[in-house]
Amino acid sequence: MLKVIAQDFIHLDALEIVRPLYRELVELTQREPLCIAYDLFENQKDPGHFIFVEEWPDRAALDIHCASEHFRRLVPLINAHQRQDGTFILMDRFQVGE
Amino acid sequence: MLKVIAQDFIHLDALEIVRPLYRELVELTQREPLCIAYDLFENQKDPGHFIFVEEWPDRAALDIHCASEHFRRLVPLINAHQRQDGTFILMDRFQVGE
Repeated sequence: MLKVIAQDFIHLDALEIVRPLYRELVELTQREPLCIAYDLFENQKDPGHFIFVEEWPDRAALDIHCASEHFRRLVPLINAHQRQDGTFILMDRFQVGE
Repeated sequence: MLKVIAQDFIHLDALEIVRPLYRELVELTQREPLCIAYDLFENQKDPGHFIFVEEWPDRAALDIHCASEHFRRLVPLINAHQRQDGTFILMDRFQVGE
């Protein structure tokens, strides 16, 4: 299992431009057969700070997502309105049990 | 619904000290009646960077968590080994549907 947090920082004057792009990206990604979870959130205290919380079976599935038509079409359209570079973190689950 | 990402940055020489503290914190928090999700992850590329992905019904529930015996006992024990200040983001879900 691979958990991902991806963060975007969008100019305030572009919020209404990016919202339908994010909406399409989320809807199409959630339909990918390998997608376990792909949820988008907004920072309550920083408008334009968008946070994806994702779950994939493995790195290969994430790579397939990043090569998809919808990713390659929509992400550059969103990134054109960035106020700073996005970030992403690839994570392993902390093992609670022994 | 309130989504939270909380991030800790722990000194490498303290990883084996904090692991059982995190384990207890996760186990006890997941038993809180208002906890919807409380999952802990580790950055694959940055050992000692721990990331909580949490979900609570509302801010009041998060405040009850932060006032719990286990939170007030365990978090200072963990934070004693921080290499930099932790961060947290409170988030709303992006509305995909119209």
